[in-house]
Amino acid sequence: MATTVASVADICLEAKHASRELARVDTATKSLALESIADAIQARAEEILEANSADLQAAAGGDYTTAFLDKLRLDHARVNAMAAGVRGVMVLPDPVGEVLDGWRLANGLDVRRVSVPLGVVAVIYEARPNVTIDATALCLKSSNAIVLRGSSAAARTNGLLAETASSAARSQGIPAGAVSLVQGGHEDSAELATQSATVDLIVPRGGEGLKASLKGVATVPVIYAASGNCHVYVDSSADLDSAREIVLNAKLQRPGVCNAAETLLVHADIAEQFLPTALAELSEAGVKLHGDARAIAAAGGAPIYEASDEDWDTEYLALELAVGVVDSAEDAIAHVNSHGSGHSEAIVTSDVGNARAFQLAVDAACVYVNASTRFTDGYEFGMGAEIGNSTQKLHARGPIGLRELCTFKYLIEGAGQIRA
Amino acid sequence: MATTVASVADICLEAKHASRELARVDTATKSLALESIADAIQARAEEILEANSADLQAAAGGDYTTAFLDKLRLDHARVNAMAAGVRGVMVLPDPVGEVLDGWRLANGLDVRRVSVPLGVVAVIYEARPNVTIDATALCLKSSNAIVLRGSSAAARTNGLLAETASSAARSQGIPAGAVSLVQGGHEDSAELATQSATVDLIVPRGGEGLKASLKGVATVPVIYAASGNCHVYVDSSADLDSAREIVLNAKLQRPGVCNAAETLLVHADIAEQFLPTALAELSEAGVKLHGDARAIAAAGGAPIYEASDEDWDTEYLALELAVGVVDSAEDAIAHVNSHGSGHSEAIVTSDVGNARAFQLAVDAACVYVNASTRFTDGYEFGMGAEIGNSTQKLHARGPIGLRELCTFKYLIEGAGQIRA
Repeated sequence: MATTVASVADICLEAKHASRELARVDTATKSLALESIADAIQARAEEILEANSADLQAAAGGDYTTAFLDKLRLDHARVNAMAAGVRGVMVLPDPVGEVLDGWRLANGLDVRRVSVPLGVVAVIYEARPNVTIDATALCLKSSNAIVLRGSSAAARTNGLLAETASSAARSQGIPAGAVSLVQGGHEDSAELATQSATVDLIVPRGGEGLKASLKGVATVPVIYAASGNCHVYVDSSADLDSAREIVLNAKLQRPGVCNAAETLLVHADIAEQFLPTALAELSEAGVKLHGDARAIAAAGGAPIYEASDEDWDTEYLALELAVGVVDSAEDAIAHVNSHGSGHSEAIVTSDVGNARAFQLAVDAACVYVNASTRFTDGYEFGMGAEIGNSTQKLHARGPIGLRELCTFKYLIEGAGQIRA
Repeated sequence: MATTVASVADICLEAKHASRELARVDTATKSLALESIADAIQARAEEILEANSADLQAAAGGDYTTAFLDKLRLDHARVNAMAAGVRGVMVLPDPVGEVLDGWRLANGLDVRRVSVPLGVVAVIYEARPNVTIDATALCLKSSNAIVLRGSSAAARTNGLLAETASSAARSQGIPAGAVSLVQGGHEDSAELATQSATVDLIVPRGGEGLKASLKGVATVPVIYAASGNCHVYVDSSADLDSAREIVLNAKLQRPGVCNAAETLLVHADIAEQFLPTALAELSEAGVKLHGDARAIAAAGGAPIYEASDEDWDTEYLALELAVGVVDSAEDAIAHVNSHGSGHSEAIVTSDVGNARAFQLAVDAACVYVNASTRFTDGYEFGMGAEIGNSTQKLHARGPIGLRELCTFKYLIEGAGQIRA
């Protein structure tokens, strides 16, 4: 593993060299490397927990929140979960070498479009040390070299985890430089973000501050893990029991994540029938409600505040929900397209025309009919592990899994063809 | 069509609104619109040529090169070619609505990944007025709204062409705002490049100056049409007659384009046999040669200059070629990966192992075995018209055709599924 004595540019150049070799490593070798990493993590669990204790002890004196310290903390269960995660990635299909398209031209040339690794992927992340291992496994599986940049608060833990992964991978023939860790000040993130000659993609995993810090400076392509201002629209034709379950699930099952619902839209025709029970249940579950005038009028006694303009654009990531009443599926679509962040949007309906219109017209990564928005996730979609969710439209939209860590190239084979 | 009285931001917002409607327009309507545009261009040919004459007259007094003025000039043949181009795009398969993947989850949810338009595409271009029509046809065919930003020297021609296209499209039910033209000072390009709330992609079509001007300011995703420092490597096992034809074709067939060869690499074992004839023919065709010491020694009398370090990294786009001798296919691969721009690279060989190694290891959009690099082109690949060629790895690599003007979304259908 490249050490922090080397400059960021040197580490990235090493990674680029390693990526050239990685592009030719076969699946069996990658599987041995991943298994070796999983074994090594479990074999060195005590060391890893000691390093983590030292990080936690140092952080205890610092200016960190309890939530941050909890994310930083490892225990035996979390160490085992990391190893299990690596084995989970190991058994996924190899995304490299898939023939995505192929055809023969009139002149006899055979054209294939084949998936290939991106090259060097940099991952910038915050507290959770498990990202060190999760991201490494995804990158090696997709034959990418990885440059990790974790939180300085997790320096000892991340350093040991990266070293463990790197030497285990090397023992199976993965080139040195395939896994490296940059540890330094904040200026290292900026330096990493400008290595466009060697780094092919940056994936920042962290809060809005991290994203904002990259937006100004990155010359390397960035895929930002998305924020989600997700909606559930309950149509006039909806099965109201199912609608209530979907709304409660989308808001309550895990409120702090990007695919949780932040706004409920209800058709005017069923507002008085639907809202009193649904809002009462949400309120009993601790959800603070913000409604427009018609939602408040139809709330039937559930405590609900007047929504401000801001509420419609807010990703609460908490037990809060904006509630609006609309006159048609078209109005719901217009609301979603004005206020949504293009992540996950759901309609609950029994009307096939409204279902189709919603799916066709809503501009989002994932558009659901009669299901909770909470399914937007690499694991849930059957794609295996993911490195985040994208609301961008170029390259990756929705879960960023192994295939999204690949690009493609055209392979063209002939027998001396020249252009006329 | 939005007029230039409106601000750039307003034009882009109109385009965004139009794009919402366009996402639901069917293929038949788009075909009628494209046919109508082709008809209108031919019907208004005299007007278009008059506007073009006025532009040419005004430009004649300015500081423009003959090449620029030639690109600016329209005649009946060029007007007819524009109309024919639109009809060519019309008959291509509709890229929107293709199911790219689809599967059923264990819980019964049906997941489809479906191609959808990007939304609003801005095209910034220089002299050639035909881009106004070519780009409009590609964007409408892929259900994208287009915002055009042409050269001020072509203002009258572009204005009339855009107005012709927009009103013909509107006559067939395409929403107003689907085709607009921004005409103003250079600051308009910068303003366009920062409309990230409404513009989904910018495609600059022009020289390095245009690209550089956007690199510093664009917040909208940009796909840069590529430069190509392309190589032909002649392996020791190559059929030397075929190799000579490929090298001559790759360098001479159209030297000024991005898929023309700029460097010839030859295996040491056949350098003395191959180079004298090949270099003599290149030289006779007017090619200035720059060689390394071994190429010079093997040139056999063909005039050849000593190559500087810069030559290996230069896209001549002219009758010039760098010539190097290497000791193995691996050395050729290493040279290509160090100096290439990731565009189009060719090996000429009869050795299947070297062919495979070259295809696997060379990091480029298009990797050829026994064929000229000149085939990298949307038309040649059978993808129909293209808006440029990309050497980026994210989203579009190689020809940027209709499919690359699309993104995708996941459509998920259920019967009340919630996440456990």
